[in-house]
Parts: sequence; C-alpha cells; structure tokens
Amino acid sequence: MPPTVVVIGGGFAGLHAARGLSCAPCEVVLLDRRNHHLFQPLLYQVATAVLNPSDIARPIRSVLRRQRNATVLLAEARAIDRASRQIELDDGTKLAYDYLVLAAGSSHSYFGKDEWERFAPGLKTIEDALEIRRRVLLAYEAAEREESEEKRRELLTFVVVGGGPTGVELAGALSEIARHALKRDFRRIRPEDARVLLLEGLPRILPAFDDDLAASAVSQLATLGVEVKTGARVTAIDATGVSIGAERIPTRTVLWAAGVQASPLARSLGVPLDRAGRVLVEKDLRVPGDERVFVAGDLAYLEIEPKKPVPGLAPAAIQAGAHTASNVISLLHGQKTRPFVYKDKGTLATIGRKRAIADIRGFKITGVLAWWAWLLIHILFLIGFRNRVLVLIEWAWAYLTYERGARLITGGGNPK
Amino acid sequence: MPPTVVVIGGGFAGLHAARGLSCAPCEVVLLDRRNHHLFQPLLYQVATAVLNPSDIARPIRSVLRRQRNATVLLAEARAIDRASRQIELDDGTKLAYDYLVLAAGSSHSYFGKDEWERFAPGLKTIEDALEIRRRVLLAYEAAEREESEEKRRELLTFVVVGGGPTGVELAGALSEIARHALKRDFRRIRPEDARVLLLEGLPRILPAFDDDLAASAVSQLATLGVEVKTGARVTAIDATGVSIGAERIPTRTVLWAAGVQASPLARSLGVPLDRAGRVLVEKDLRVPGDERVFVAGDLAYLEIEPKKPVPGLAPAAIQAGAHTASNVISLLHGQKTRPFVYKDKGTLATIGRKRAIADIRGFKITGVLAWWAWLLIHILFLIGFRNRVLVLIEWAWAYLTYERGARLITGGGNPK
Repeated sequence: MPPTVVVIGGGFAGLHAARGLSCAPCEVVLLDRRNHHLFQPLLYQVATAVLNPSDIARPIRSVLRRQRNATVLLAEARAIDRASRQIELDDGTKLAYDYLVLAAGSSHSYFGKDEWERFAPGLKTIEDALEIRRRVLLAYEAAEREESEEKRRELLTFVVVGGGPTGVELAGALSEIARHALKRDFRRIRPEDARVLLLEGLPRILPAFDDDLAASAVSQLATLGVEVKTGARVTAIDATGVSIGAERIPTRTVLWAAGVQASPLARSLGVPLDRAGRVLVEKDLRVPGDERVFVAGDLAYLEIEPKKPVPGLAPAAIQAGAHTASNVISLLHGQKTRPFVYKDKGTLATIGRKRAIADIRGFKITGVLAWWAWLLIHILFLIGFRNRVLVLIEWAWAYLTYERGARLITGGGNPK
Repeated sequence: MPPTVVVIGGGFAGLHAARGLSCAPCEVVLLDRRNHHLFQPLLYQVATAVLNPSDIARPIRSVLRRQRNATVLLAEARAIDRASRQIELDDGTKLAYDYLVLAAGSSHSYFGKDEWERFAPGLKTIEDALEIRRRVLLAYEAAEREESEEKRRELLTFVVVGGGPTGVELAGALSEIARHALKRDFRRIRPEDARVLLLEGLPRILPAFDDDLAASAVSQLATLGVEVKTGARVTAIDATGVSIGAERIPTRTVLWAAGVQASPLARSLGVPLDRAGRVLVEKDLRVPGDERVFVAGDLAYLEIEPKKPVPGLAPAAIQAGAHTASNVISLLHGQKTRPFVYKDKGTLATIGRKRAIADIRGFKITGVLAWWAWLLIHILFLIGFRNRVLVLIEWAWAYLTYERGARLITGGGNPK
C-alpha cells in the first residue's frame, strides 16, 4: 500500500497541494465539507448580482477527475488525533493518514460579538453571497412599499463594516447597483438616493496597501458616492442600525467584512496558535515537532519579516499549497524539506467600474489601468475554461448595459 | 385619475396581461411575492445542474422597466374582496382595483398527503430546483462514503413520481447525469449503476400526447435506462423509500411531478371552482357575474370541448394573458369583451440528449428532429437576449463535453 496523504480543505491551498501530488507515489484523499472549490476573490460579485454561483465555483471532483491517485470525500473533519495519526469525521468514522495537509481556512470573526452575525452577514460561502444579495435587493423592494419617509431612508442606507479589500469592493458595488443597475426600475423611490457607508476601526482603510494607494481608493470611492468613515469602531449592531459609540446610523442592511478567525480544527492539533487561531508553523510549513503534519493557506501563520506574516491572499495560498506538496514528495523520497519563500506578485483591489488600485512589486497604479489589470488577472486565474468564457460574457454585459444579470431574490422562505 | 388594473402574478399569464396594457389608458400594478419571472419550462434544467437560476429568471421590474404605466410590487395577496374591490396584502394594507387580472398560478398537490412533501420535493420555484439538485448530488456523495452494499444501492436509486412532461424530463436528465456527467468522478461507486424509476398512476405516461408519441417516449426513456412503471399508484413515501401497494422501492431520493393545485387565492373570490381549485371562468375569461375580475393562466378552467380544458402550458398562459389585456382595454373604451380562443401551436416534451417527442398541429415527430425543435423553440421564447446567449453557451458546453456546469451543492446548512 502506498502511503496516504490526507488534505483537509478544497480551497486554494488544499487544491494546489492535492494537484502537486498527482505524480507522487502516494494516495491522496481530499476532504471538504462542500462539494465545490470556490474562487473567493470574485465572491462579492455573486453577492452584488453580477455573477452566478457556478461561474466562480467548480465541483472539486471534476477538478481532480483525471488525477488517478486522488479521492474526494464530501465530509467534515471534527478533530485531528496526531498521536494515532487519524482524523475523526462528522459521521464518527476515522480516517488514517501518513501525511496530513491541513488547509481548512478561516471564517468570520465578530470579535466575540456573535450576536451581530444575524444582523450583519459576512461573505465566505456561496450561501453568504446569496443571503447578502437577497437582503440588499429586498431593502429596495421594501422601500418601494414604505410610506414613511424616515423608514424609507433607513431602508436605503447600506453599511459595510471593515475597510479591507472585500469591504471596499462590496461598498463600491453597492453604490453602483444604486446609481446604475436599479436606476429606472422603481416608481416611488429613487435608488440613486441610497447611502452607502464604509466603516473602518483603524485610522485608514486598506492597511495592506501603502498610504498613497489607500488615499486614491478613498477618493475613487468618493466619486462613487461611498462615505468612508475611518477610526469608526462599531459598538453595537441590531435590527435597526449600527452604533459607533454615541453616534447612531439607522439602517436595515449591514454587511460584515471586518474580522476573520481560523478554523477551529487548528485547536485539535494541540500546538501554539496566534490570537486569530492560526497555527504558528515552521519555515517548511510543518507543525512544530511533527514530521507528518503541514498547514497551508489562511490557517498558517508564518512571518516573512518580524510582525509581517505571509498575507491571507489567494496567490499566497496557492504557493503554500504547491510548496507543501513538494515537501511531502521530498519526505516520501527520504529527502529534506525546504523552507517556504513567499513570492509577492502584487496586490490588487477593485473599487468599481474602471476604478481600482494595484501594487505590483512596488509599481503602483490606480484607476482604469489598475482595473484592467485586475480584470485580466482574475479571468486568467479562474479555474476552468467554461467559467472564463461565461464570466467574460457576464462582465461584458454588465459593462455595456450597466445591468446586473443575476438580480434574483431567492431563499429565506417567501419574501415578505 | 386613470383607472387601476391590478395584475396578481408575474408568471406567463400575468406578465403578458401587464405588457398588453402598456398603451392602455390605465395604471397597471403587478403584484408578485417573488421578484422574478421564471421561465418554468426549463426549470428542470436548473434542478439537473445544466443551467443557473438567472439563466431562466429575470426580475419583473426590469422586464417592465420601460412600461411607464406599470408599477411592480413585491408583495403577497392574502385575499380578494370583490364587494369593496380591494386586495388585502401580506402587510395588512389594502390595494384598490378597478379591474383585476388574477394569474396566481398553481403549486404542487400531494393529493391530501402533505406529509410526503418533506420526502418528495416538487418543482415549481428556483428554491425547489436547487433543493432537488442538492438532494440528487448529495445522494452520490453519500454513496461514495457508504460501506454497506445495500445502502449504497438505496442511495443510487432515484424515483420520479408523475409521468407528465416534467416527470419525463426529470427522469431522462437524472439518467444522463448518472451515465455521463458523473461517470469518471467517483472512485468507489459507479454512477452509471444508478437506477432511475418513473412512476405513473395512470395506464400510460404523457396523457396530453397521443398513444404513438407516448410509446415512443417510453422506448426513448428505455434507451437511457429509465424504468417506466405505469398503473403504479404510490401509497406511501418516507425517508427510506416509496410504496406502491405491497411493493416497496428502497430509495433516499424521490422527486414529485404528479399533481398540481390552484392558488388558494381563488377561494377568496367566492365563485365555483373545479376539483383542483381552478376558477370556472366565462368564455371571455371573466369570473361569472363580475364585470371587473378576469382569471388567466393555470388558475382558470375553460373548456375548449366538453371535458377538454385549455391546457396548463406556457403558450396557453401567454395567450390568455394577452387576451385578458385586450378585453380590459375593450371595457375601458366601453366596448364588449370577446371570447378567448386557444390556438394550439403544438406540444413538446424532451427526454434527453437528442431525444424528444413533438406534436405540432397533428404533425408528429420523435427523436433528434423533435429535440432540435424543442431546443429552438425554448431558446426563442426565453425572455431577454442575455439569457438566450448564456443558455446557448451552457447547452453547447453540456452537449460537447457531457458535463453539467452548475453541479454545486448549496443551501441546507453545511452538507453532512
């Protein structure tokens, strides 16, 4: 029997780890509790009704169909027992491994205020994206039916909490929906009167970018009508609004793009974690003191320089996944592992139609050019030819007509 | 103030009634509890993972955007009070009408066995389609993890109840998924071993078609491996199977395509209904004894010949909707209404790849030719150019690769 390498998680890191093992002398078992790999950088476009779920997601099975040494299991890992080298699954069965690649990723963190989740959904899964789409579109529908001027204003106020790339993208897209996509669709309200606020607790948005680019993002957001509030620490969120200390913003729609926390699976490893629950890995991405367990992607914490970790971006996860595979292969051949070196290929954030910022190896661009770079790179990295073609068409349609093709309200029982 | 025409329902009949009133001297208010018009004839393709929801649905607002006299309200009608000419809405408010077009359609009927609904979802809405997709795909995933041969066989048995066009389409598509789309994706099971059964209580399937065509459909289904059981009256459905009298079919996935019942809104009219709850309308589609209320689409019962009513098909609903609009216009101008004459343009049912039957004004075709006719007609009638292009691409992709592009399992909490 060849040794078994279990990969937990079918995101960027897990999938590239599994693929990297395609010619290795081992069996690969990839576990995920979802049946699809998700191209998360475009998830906000599903939330804002440009793209369909299947444009940015593909069944993990069909991605790995041709890899004869790979088995895909739809299952959730409950705990990892390193002593017996077993993983406990949701149905109580155990799965043995010779090597383990843990790439279970992260989910939202409400900084201990879990009761906010109901009022301010985050954006990690397809279901999250469809829920956000539903809430945003229903707010306009409810406003069209509302008699009271004051309540109408509440319904047409949209608050995004968190000024990272996802928050910026969501806020920009919400503003474009109001100003363009819905413009002529209502009779009693003017969608273009909607207010979109972006709240950030730190002194500035987009901390991963330098000051000039972040400032450019703020002014590009302003041209879209997004109000950016920095230094705004949210102290309460409920059904009727958001509080920032004494200030109150009445709103019915709050979206959460603020904190992430690592998968709770990391805790069962019994090794030191950082404050966000990430595993403090060795330079070769292994768990300290364990020959057989690697951690890759958002779940791993590894510093490039003191206090500057590998960022939680798709390219970093892809590199870490592939590197893990090559280290496992080294071990299978009785060789030594190599340390992981993150290659920074650049950071991009899109703000809206023809608006974006990019930092490509110190080369900083803003506006139209950055937007085209963003477009090109995201099309190139979408998994699957079919998805590329369909996304191109959806984008061309949205660009030419200002329409949002996927403006469907579904789920959540009958809309009221 | 011009008179107000309220249209309840944004399906084929309601939408065409509203559109037909675009140049009439009246205000049109279209009420629907969903924000989208759905191209129901292709809904089974969303359920079987070929198409995306937004390929076959479009926001009613954007369909009616350019019609200046039309207002769209996302709201549910609770009751109709003909005496005061008012409609009671879900939020307790009342909406007054001068003329009313009731086109609220139908939903599933479980023939009084409502407890079957949990185990055998029907196919009327986008949510239904996604739930069916989820159940079918999860059955294969569970089979891949199952150790017991017997349970694996249960999981790979799919039962469709009801031998009308929807049941035939679903059964054919389920068989194609097993034989082609999933073929090489699993390691422990052979999806092509899946069993697909189509159960019909009557002596033959497809009662709307003549004997020859129905027989052709049975043999085309057989080439796909679908087992057709006629005269099979289902007596029980539960979590582990279906009973037909003493016979038991162990299965985990049952789909319901058997009965429909009219919208309960019809009851509040206080006029005679047929057994399925449809309104027995006058020849001009008005409610007996009421000058101002019309019923169109699936909710109306009107006989073409004794015991042969206008069929519950999309073309009939479109014709009835448009006819209602022209009758309302006649009344607005103080003229008489005209009786509705149904023009039968043909009936089609698709069975699978290059398999279909068609009866076009007595001209009967089967197989490849009928399939191409079906394809062409469904593309032509899809609302919106964008949808046509995207559906064509999805179909071309599915045809050339045997792949199903939209094979995502979403909803229902975390899949187990």
